[in-house]
Amino acid sequence: MPAASTAGHLLKNFVKGMELYKLSKTFDAVLKTGNFVMAEPGKVHFEIEILKEHTNGLGGMHGGFVALLVDNITGAAITTLGKSKKPDIPFYSGVSVAMNLNYLSPGKLGETIIAKASVEKMGRTLVFTSCELVNKSDGKIIATGQHTKFL
Amino acid sequence: MPAASTAGHLLKNFVKGMELYKLSKTFDAVLKTGNFVMAEPGKVHFEIEILKEHTNGLGGMHGGFVALLVDNITGAAITTLGKSKKPDIPFYSGVSVAMNLNYLSPGKLGETIIAKASVEKMGRTLVFTSCELVNKSDGKIIATGQHTKFL
Amino acid sequence: MPAASTAGHLLKNFVKGMELYKLSKTFDAVLKTGNFVMAEPGKVHFEIEILKEHTNGLGGMHGGFVALLVDNITGAAITTLGKSKKPDIPFYSGVSVAMNLNYLSPGKLGETIIAKASVEKMGRTLVFTSCELVNKSDGKIIATGQHTKFL
Amino acid sequence: MPAASTAGHLLKNFVKGMELYKLSKTFDAVLKTGNFVMAEPGKVHFEIEILKEHTNGLGGMHGGFVALLVDNITGAAITTLGKSKKPDIPFYSGVSVAMNLNYLSPGKLGETIIAKASVEKMGRTLVFTSCELVNKSDGKIIATGQHTKFL
Repeated sequence: MPAASTAGHLLKNFVKGMELYKLSKTFDAVLKTGNFVMAEPGKVHFEIEILKEHTNGLGGMHGGFVALLVDNITGAAITTLGKSKKPDIPFYSGVSVAMNLNYLSPGKLGETIIAKASVEKMGRTLVFTSCELVNKSDGKIIATGQHTKFL
Repeated sequence: MPAASTAGHLLKNFVKGMELYKLSKTFDAVLKTGNFVMAEPGKVHFEIEILKEHTNGLGGMHGGFVALLVDNITGAAITTLGKSKKPDIPFYSGVSVAMNLNYLSPGKLGETIIAKASVEKMGRTLVFTSCELVNKSDGKIIATGQHTKFL
Repeated sequence: MPAASTAGHLLKNFVKGMELYKLSKTFDAVLKTGNFVMAEPGKVHFEIEILKEHTNGLGGMHGGFVALLVDNITGAAITTLGKSKKPDIPFYSGVSVAMNLNYLSPGKLGETIIAKASVEKMGRTLVFTSCELVNKSDGKIIATGQHTKFL
Repeated sequence: MPAASTAGHLLKNFVKGMELYKLSKTFDAVLKTGNFVMAEPGKVHFEIEILKEHTNGLGGMHGGFVALLVDNITGAAITTLGKSKKPDIPFYSGVSVAMNLNYLSPGKLGETIIAKASVEKMGRTLVFTSCELVNKSDGKIIATGQHTKFL
């Protein structure tokens, strides 16, 4: 299957997967207003506008929301490689071992940010991923993260 | 003022502060069902039951929720030292520089966890904190985190 | 065997193990002037004076030397639990997955520092450890670290 | 000055700077057998063969040596931006606040690795950098790191 078509196929899966976020009663529901805008093997991009419910008391993107994005979107990137050990659970990508976050610039209410996640190494038991959160309008890096999961 | 009384005074502040979480329309509202159970200079404990809205698709405590707890509760620990640069903003504790999270054991739906946060070093511009999340019933460590803020 | 005697036994092992550091032609040799001063199941303390060869261009303890200490001394703490998968290799404690370091205060040339390492969770495949580097004379925290290994 | 010429100029500085590593009695001397092979504003590449003195007891690249490389080479990347607060000290790039390391694959004795460091954000007081260590022969990622310094 050509890469372009694979990417299109993956993206369709994610569009469908978003329905799960929207209907979900779990913490994933926090991302229900966002959208996957790119998906290819090992990589996904997710776009979301910073709403009041994603901010801290200062009107900036909450550090915990940054973490939630890094956690979920790197997890989604893992699923593009099709090696799920629990194929019955949508978006299953293992359990977290560690996450590191660096906060470079504050994201602000009303801005649209893109979370760009990649799989750096898919091992037999561990998978290493990274994620960059950028401001859609000017490309400024808001935060970077690394997330390691146990498959 | 004797230490015990200081602790009692601080705790009362936090009980009041919880009202803000409860009424808040920001991401902090995620913590509205929890409670500060201890506060002394440099340290706070926060207790919360893992509800469905804090879980992931596997029924375990969401990694992003762990991060949110570490972020907010270490921030609260900073406020106990009374050096806020924005005293008009409740619970103001600077902006995040970095956060590291290690996930030791999964927290499960229905369990009560305690987030124990400490300030490790309060510098002139940077403050270093750490946090341990333990299961209330058996003391098992669920996650540990470090959070560095810029004052 | 009573705990005290276990600790004494472990410490003797480490004293012997130091001979390996002293004779070693590997990177471990950097620690040859230090000494294990405490060892009990899950915990070790290692003492070392900051010599010129451990400093950076500013006369302070080199950040890379801090990392080396955290790496080796947490590894030593793992060995106290006696679950080595390669018992023929002295001090074998698995391979590194991740390490986080926070630098709180500079260590200076001529100071003696103590690296205090603990095993936080020994799982079936992953082991989580932490380490605190303190100034021996005043107890000030110089750095903290977390180190995760794959057994 | 055109970018190409700037890069050439920077690289010449680093070649000269290597003399300092070679003559140094500090921990930096560990890197004396390596070489800067690329330097441009915000980025440097450093190449080094893994010698016995850089290994651990298993014959692999020592995790502490990985940390030393990330520490020094990201520091060197900072110096390319010419904002040193202590211009009299060669390679001065501030003091470390935090470092995160992820170990993806083991580097082995005799292999040549390239440490590729970049400045991600140069702020007024904090600078965020990242580094990737790759095997020169096949491009495999050995480790990734983030290093935050206080200027």
